[in-house]
Amino acid sequence: MSTPTLTLAGVTVATQANVYFGGQCVSHTVTLPDGTRKSVGVILPSTLTFTTGAPEVMEGVAGQCEVLLPGETAWRRFGPGERFAVPGQSSFQIRVEGEPYHYVCHFG
Amino acid sequence: MSTPTLTLAGVTVATQANVYFGGQCVSHTVTLPDGTRKSVGVILPSTLTFTTGAPEVMEGVAGQCEVLLPGETAWRRFGPGERFAVPGQSSFQIRVEGEPYHYVCHFG
Repeated sequence: MSTPTLTLAGVTVATQANVYFGGQCVSHTVTLPDGTRKSVGVILPSTLTFTTGAPEVMEGVAGQCEVLLPGETAWRRFGPGERFAVPGQSSFQIRVEGEPYHYVCHFG
Repeated sequence: MSTPTLTLAGVTVATQANVYFGGQCVSHTVTLPDGTRKSVGVILPSTLTFTTGAPEVMEGVAGQCEVLLPGETAWRRFGPGERFAVPGQSSFQIRVEGEPYHYVCHFG
């Protein structure tokens, strides 16, 4: 486990949020000076299935989650500073219990 | 009504969200190069009472809300590009129906 990304500096933030699953997941899209896009978000206690377009790496910032990655049969737990990668054009399940799970989603 | 602030550029974003009222309101804090702090957030359909520390100006980005400001007896409706000011050390009620209300909160 490493220190999570606590801030993203020198970025452009889209002021309109992305609201998924009726608000169980809310994120804001961030664009870096080189054009790289990320999102900063939070998942409230729930079990959700996300589908990916581009490959993504989820990095925990605060809280815990359990994840069932494509092709796997066991749930894996991730916390602050821990990352998991999800292939593009796939889906994964994520389960959050108790406290919200805060993350940075790195695309591509 | 003017065009809402669609992006905030050259800013630092805190990756951990602010989660209020069990997730009915979620925001991310943004710091401008001059140190000015703002937040970008969304309120899901609900009626909430917020208390202010510093004075704030709420600017709608998407969606609609109705607001009962301190000392007023009538609810007022605000949409994208519209702003309302709330004194410091006070409270106000906000009601969102249907679609989420996205905002930028300008402090001070």
